[in-house]
Amino acid sequence: MNKSLTILVNCTDEKGLIYKITRVLYENGLNIVKNKEFVDEDTNRFFMRTEAEGEANQTVLLEALTAVLPPNSRIEVVPDRRKRLVILATRENHCLGDLLMRNHFKEWNAEISGVISNYDLLKDFTERFNLPYHYIAAETLSREEHEQLLTGAINNYAPDYIVLARYMRILTPNFVQQYKEKIINIHHSFLPAFIGAQPYRQAYERGVKIIGATAHFVNDHLDEGPIICQNVIPVDHSQNAAEMSRAGKGIEKMVLAQALKLVLEDRVMLSGNKTVIF
Amino acid sequence: MNKSLTILVNCTDEKGLIYKITRVLYENGLNIVKNKEFVDEDTNRFFMRTEAEGEANQTVLLEALTAVLPPNSRIEVVPDRRKRLVILATRENHCLGDLLMRNHFKEWNAEISGVISNYDLLKDFTERFNLPYHYIAAETLSREEHEQLLTGAINNYAPDYIVLARYMRILTPNFVQQYKEKIINIHHSFLPAFIGAQPYRQAYERGVKIIGATAHFVNDHLDEGPIICQNVIPVDHSQNAAEMSRAGKGIEKMVLAQALKLVLEDRVMLSGNKTVIF
Amino acid sequence: MNKSLTILVNCTDEKGLIYKITRVLYENGLNIVKNKEFVDEDTNRFFMRTEAEGEANQTVLLEALTAVLPPNSRIEVVPDRRKRLVILATRENHCLGDLLMRNHFKEWNAEISGVISNYDLLKDFTERFNLPYHYIAAETLSREEHEQLLTGAINNYAPDYIVLARYMRILTPNFVQQYKEKIINIHHSFLPAFIGAQPYRQAYERGVKIIGATAHFVNDHLDEGPIICQNVIPVDHSQNAAEMSRAGKGIEKMVLAQALKLVLEDRVMLSGNKTVIF
Amino acid sequence: MNKSLTILVNCTDEKGLIYKITRVLYENGLNIVKNKEFVDEDTNRFFMRTEAEGEANQTVLLEALTAVLPPNSRIEVVPDRRKRLVILATRENHCLGDLLMRNHFKEWNAEISGVISNYDLLKDFTERFNLPYHYIAAETLSREEHEQLLTGAINNYAPDYIVLARYMRILTPNFVQQYKEKIINIHHSFLPAFIGAQPYRQAYERGVKIIGATAHFVNDHLDEGPIICQNVIPVDHSQNAAEMSRAGKGIEKMVLAQALKLVLEDRVMLSGNKTVIF
Repeated sequence: MNKSLTILVNCTDEKGLIYKITRVLYENGLNIVKNKEFVDEDTNRFFMRTEAEGEANQTVLLEALTAVLPPNSRIEVVPDRRKRLVILATRENHCLGDLLMRNHFKEWNAEISGVISNYDLLKDFTERFNLPYHYIAAETLSREEHEQLLTGAINNYAPDYIVLARYMRILTPNFVQQYKEKIINIHHSFLPAFIGAQPYRQAYERGVKIIGATAHFVNDHLDEGPIICQNVIPVDHSQNAAEMSRAGKGIEKMVLAQALKLVLEDRVMLSGNKTVIF
Repeated sequence: MNKSLTILVNCTDEKGLIYKITRVLYENGLNIVKNKEFVDEDTNRFFMRTEAEGEANQTVLLEALTAVLPPNSRIEVVPDRRKRLVILATRENHCLGDLLMRNHFKEWNAEISGVISNYDLLKDFTERFNLPYHYIAAETLSREEHEQLLTGAINNYAPDYIVLARYMRILTPNFVQQYKEKIINIHHSFLPAFIGAQPYRQAYERGVKIIGATAHFVNDHLDEGPIICQNVIPVDHSQNAAEMSRAGKGIEKMVLAQALKLVLEDRVMLSGNKTVIF
Repeated sequence: MNKSLTILVNCTDEKGLIYKITRVLYENGLNIVKNKEFVDEDTNRFFMRTEAEGEANQTVLLEALTAVLPPNSRIEVVPDRRKRLVILATRENHCLGDLLMRNHFKEWNAEISGVISNYDLLKDFTERFNLPYHYIAAETLSREEHEQLLTGAINNYAPDYIVLARYMRILTPNFVQQYKEKIINIHHSFLPAFIGAQPYRQAYERGVKIIGATAHFVNDHLDEGPIICQNVIPVDHSQNAAEMSRAGKGIEKMVLAQALKLVLEDRVMLSGNKTVIF
Repeated sequence: MNKSLTILVNCTDEKGLIYKITRVLYENGLNIVKNKEFVDEDTNRFFMRTEAEGEANQTVLLEALTAVLPPNSRIEVVPDRRKRLVILATRENHCLGDLLMRNHFKEWNAEISGVISNYDLLKDFTERFNLPYHYIAAETLSREEHEQLLTGAINNYAPDYIVLARYMRILTPNFVQQYKEKIINIHHSFLPAFIGAQPYRQAYERGVKIIGATAHFVNDHLDEGPIICQNVIPVDHSQNAAEMSRAGKGIEKMVLAQALKLVLEDRVMLSGNKTVIF
């Protein structure tokens, strides 16, 4: 039986990179199943994602790749293992519900370890799936105190990714820094339109004919992190802000699930404030 | 043979409006072919568009409708007549070309009277369709002087609508005021994202996964007028700004043509800074 | 406080129908909140859906409408009441899960009374939401015997609609006849492409670049009933049939939920083998 | 200044192919600009498209690639050259018009050599772009005689591809055979739905909620050749067959142009009756 692993390379572009990398894999007895590359001409960076099958010593492979690639290359050899997720939610149930259902039916090679919320509204629902629910109220706490409690709960699970399933509180740069490139948010607009609060209200006021949803990594600037997935649906004048909000829920949960699937399959690489999706 | 006309009503909402309006039409021997209404709950305004067939005296009809509707209602009785368009362009050929082709093959109940541009690049192309092309260079003129020349050329045609087919100059409030609710623009982004110059460059820099186009009426604020139509296409990391621009052309010309068709069929009513599309 | 009701009219077209209907509503003290009409020119049928507010005696209203409309008109006065649903499922969890979740969070003015399946796979999941699950195996029974058991279970709930949430058994004309215009199915293709079994396999074999889902009423012919909603997503050569199937689940559950929302809000009228959606 | 070429490989899959191919390119001094691969697990075929820059002798390169690849591999080294197109049309103007406009403004690295039609309706329009128009009437001829005249006109231009821009006559297997893998058709439905005549009429009769267009290579079976591109737009009950046909034109010309762009950039490889799009 073959084992599979994913090799991710992000380095300065130069002639012969694909040849050099695939030679290493070939010489280590690996069979390439899927391979994608991209060269960002603006930054002169080379990106490559390779799914390979075979028995290989990860350390040996990493050393061999390092030897043929330019200095300061970012090389990852990712084994095929089950990832861990922690979900943060507030009051909205649709994204959380969709994630819990997918988790329950083992749709991904991942598992949700726990759910954290600043409200207790979704506790009963979450516990129906036998998952721990941490209700950490925010009202009486400073932002830093609240985040300290969050961090405590999160770190117990040592998650690979934190998913904000319509978590409606702004996170401090300090919090974001602790989980760099590990926090995925769903924003309920086609960013960069309608950043911030009440995007459906903003969309309604502006009279747009499409509304959308955006899944992105969280960085220090609200709703400005690298975009992973977006999708839209048509709306018309007959829908008010509340109706747009209801109509948008379907696309929100679909976009978040698509983004999460890509991330869990190691298909998303970061290139500055953008993503390369393989 | 029946004649057809379109009745547009925009008034304060009250009980019985549809009944009162359709009674007038019934008593005037008109047969309703299509009818759509909308009540904007925020503003308490009632909108109705009725296509009717039959012989009716427009003045009599207008008076009869005025008599049953609230004071200060906006009532229009639009006969089925060929509308006139003037196109403004700069250097891009795709939107202009699409409009000229649709005009040449008489796709609409409208005709393009002439094309005006601040470049002479599209002159040969326009004249192949036997249409007048006014090259009005802007370089040596103040904005006001240039617009005065535009106005002169436009007014000769007494157009119903002015279409900005990727016309890349900002218009003054004074110019816009002269053609209030009569100027239709195509903006090459899904507004309100990427207002202003180089939206594809902005989209590329932001790393969005969808790009779009927006047709809207022009008002005093750049790219902020009432939106008529929008559409989007997916993009990915492998497309740079130039490639996004190429890919977006198809959607730009489709959205502009859709918006123009709606306007020419009197299906677009204005409700503040939004449109009601029937 | 105002009560609301929905009036549905389906009759032969003739001059003055909107006037006559709205006069009756006006004279009965009703205020029209939403109104949509459509004339099918092929069949000369008139369709109208009116949402109205006010106190009105339903019998009086029905009689008054009958008096002004052509003979053999189909007139319904639907009060604003909670509808009941029964779900039939087989092995797939995504559509059922989505429906149970929406039901749990009271997204509709409706409630799921119970779930019936020819497998016991989804029992534990359904019962987590405190809903009855009827496992009615089919293996040892004739089609008619099995349907008799289904009918027994269904009729106990007196449902307004039966939803086939990826129920993978063919229903007999006799069964369909019992629940005429009341059974809603989700088919995992953009019908009429890929009727019958394994549509994703068929789509993969054909090499299509889009896949889709279709919600429709069930009639005597497999996958040929009146279509309510359809939607599609792009696919490419790199996705095999299993991957298309996984990708399609998101659109299946979205389309089924959209269709069900329309039906529950009395927005779907039947016109031969087509639907008029208001 | 660098020259660019595209290498296309279609061969039996085996371990080390990417490594072997990229080694040849590296040793021939070529720099890979873009590279995409795909393994069809059903057929065990490997597909690869590589854009490379540099000076290389094509014959030497082809020999070197042949030496490292499995027997019976299909290897093409395509220089960056302007391709020639012949367009066949009947009466519809929108697809032809869009192609002529794109050709006129040199949107592709290709040129339209001439237009052939069984009607003279589009002659004046075509000649406005200074292109030859061959009116070859079909009425008095057998299918074979007509095709012989077509072939004569086509072969004079030695085109790389023949584009059927809503050419409404069925082609014989003999004709198709002469231009194997070289004829591109636009069909006005989302295939395989609505094969054959009057797809918009069929779509209207079926009551679908989306209509579409499909660009595909022509093979011996009507509307069954390998699909290159598809796209759809929403429709509703208010649109009759003629209105669907009008609405569909925009998507037809967009899909045909997308497909043609892909083909002209050598991004489309054939895999049985399917396409691999790179």
